[in-house]
Amino acid sequence: MKEQNNIKRTDVNTLGEFGLIDHLTKDFTTTNASTIKGVGDDCAIIDNGNNYTVISTDMLVEGIHFDRIYTPLKHLGYKSIIVNLSDIYACNAVPQQVTVSIALSNQYSVEDLEEIYSGIHTACKIYGVDLVGGDTTSSNKGLIISVTAIGQVDPQKVVYRSGAKVGDLLCVTGDLGAAYLGLQLLEREKDLYLSQPDIKPDLENQAYLLERQLKPEARRDVIDLFAKSELHPTAMIDISDGLASEVFHICKQSGVGAFIEEAKVPLRQETELMALRFKLDPITCALNGGEDYELLFTISPEDLDKTTYLTQLFIIGEIVPKEDGIKLHTSGGNIHDLQAQGWRHF
Amino acid sequence: MKEQNNIKRTDVNTLGEFGLIDHLTKDFTTTNASTIKGVGDDCAIIDNGNNYTVISTDMLVEGIHFDRIYTPLKHLGYKSIIVNLSDIYACNAVPQQVTVSIALSNQYSVEDLEEIYSGIHTACKIYGVDLVGGDTTSSNKGLIISVTAIGQVDPQKVVYRSGAKVGDLLCVTGDLGAAYLGLQLLEREKDLYLSQPDIKPDLENQAYLLERQLKPEARRDVIDLFAKSELHPTAMIDISDGLASEVFHICKQSGVGAFIEEAKVPLRQETELMALRFKLDPITCALNGGEDYELLFTISPEDLDKTTYLTQLFIIGEIVPKEDGIKLHTSGGNIHDLQAQGWRHF
Repeated sequence: MKEQNNIKRTDVNTLGEFGLIDHLTKDFTTTNASTIKGVGDDCAIIDNGNNYTVISTDMLVEGIHFDRIYTPLKHLGYKSIIVNLSDIYACNAVPQQVTVSIALSNQYSVEDLEEIYSGIHTACKIYGVDLVGGDTTSSNKGLIISVTAIGQVDPQKVVYRSGAKVGDLLCVTGDLGAAYLGLQLLEREKDLYLSQPDIKPDLENQAYLLERQLKPEARRDVIDLFAKSELHPTAMIDISDGLASEVFHICKQSGVGAFIEEAKVPLRQETELMALRFKLDPITCALNGGEDYELLFTISPEDLDKTTYLTQLFIIGEIVPKEDGIKLHTSGGNIHDLQAQGWRHF
Repeated sequence: MKEQNNIKRTDVNTLGEFGLIDHLTKDFTTTNASTIKGVGDDCAIIDNGNNYTVISTDMLVEGIHFDRIYTPLKHLGYKSIIVNLSDIYACNAVPQQVTVSIALSNQYSVEDLEEIYSGIHTACKIYGVDLVGGDTTSSNKGLIISVTAIGQVDPQKVVYRSGAKVGDLLCVTGDLGAAYLGLQLLEREKDLYLSQPDIKPDLENQAYLLERQLKPEARRDVIDLFAKSELHPTAMIDISDGLASEVFHICKQSGVGAFIEEAKVPLRQETELMALRFKLDPITCALNGGEDYELLFTISPEDLDKTTYLTQLFIIGEIVPKEDGIKLHTSGGNIHDLQAQGWRHF
């Protein structure tokens, strides 16, 4: 009965996530005057005639984005909200509403859903957003959570990925790589547990790494401080896929290059120690790990005096002409091209 | 490693879809002034200081909402947009943007995704909406499409489910039950095909029923005519779960009852004939079938002269006091309580 009989069959992975979206949406043009930004930024931006409505949407799929065996459902509900709020903040906007759609198999009970919603409720309360819609439906396998966050921003204050200028300073709001190492830790203990169920998991004293992975926060405080300090970043993105990938996005969309000082990339001691225990280079965890949900942004050097209130501000490099490329100045003194997905194992 | 050790385990089906959502969201209150309508209408409604932003979100899950074996992917992409636009129109609003998130297993190729996006593209073009965001991710099994539609409406013109008044006329915009019978037809041919793959499917002359199921339309024309005629429905909802269920929603949220004339419920001849071939009562297909994506709305009887332009308007009953209940006057002359999910097989 299938109508299709494709001769050609290209594996989805050949294009990569971003290449795939570019490919699929290349014929789409926007025609409504209210559409300010479409595919290609953290959020969609819509002019509502007063300010801008900012929309972000994200899907968490069991077995892909989370593993049920070590993910408390309350944390999962919390995180599903946070990852979307983080995108809204990355546009310098304030999230106000969320919708939540959940598909789940009959493995899950009402009590499981209550746990998920309890996490959603906590996140909504802490971040001051209202749950305004969504639904619950069945799935044949596993749990899928799709969240849409809606925010507002003054058109004068909206920040895109595309505004970075040569000479701007490249900044991050907190330490990187911890969420990735939290994940490695959970995966290791899962493997151990599956092979020897009697052994108690060894997760003592790893609260920081685990929390960065299981219950991340979004940097609302930073957006509030930008407003307080009247600091206007020239470009911004949230770090969900790893620092390197986000630097590439800003550079591509701003038509610039970047020069990053490895020694300036903030790492917590816990992250460095755990990376070494996993025989990983800590900086690679920061560059390519992802899920830190810190903000990466650029500011004009003239605005440096406005950063006083930002207690957690790390200047990790600067924006250079496009021709100069995207370079990493390593702690060892070498300069090489930044790799978006290059793993350096020992 | 699981932190949870639930003693109680309640099956999700015990509460029903709407009971479940009510249960899970009962502790959520809305706190932002911009939140006009939260959970419980077709859309979330947000005051943006100029007009209202209207948001609808829906998830289509393979094996639950569609069967890959008889669903052309292009139609699936089209339908995923339509079902959300229908919700926006049900608030008397005009959709302008959509976001699309897709999770899919490695069974699917780039060419499959191109088919889906081609249907999305067609729907966007026909209905004048812009694709503004979304992503593509992996799933362990099957295909999940989550769409969010965003529209705008003048606060004076927004229509909720809750505005029906005693004496109002209950109207639908087109024939019902056809989408459900299209589904029965496809399911029958699928079973035949699976047992005897050599037999060609017998779907000739059933274009209407199949198209109502596989490639529905949303009633933008009706919303346009409301504007042209300056007709303001008192309550409105789109028919996605079957007429009976939608009547219940309007009555519950408006605090009223309803009296429906079975003989006035519009049915196409194809629907009646096919229902009889399946030994189903045609009216039951209309009442409980779902997926027709027609609009159900109420108008003040004084506005009846404004309905001249609405060539496809069927007055199926009227709104009565809550104490009178929700009744169906059958063609056989009986009056009984309307059942939201009662199947009458022969």
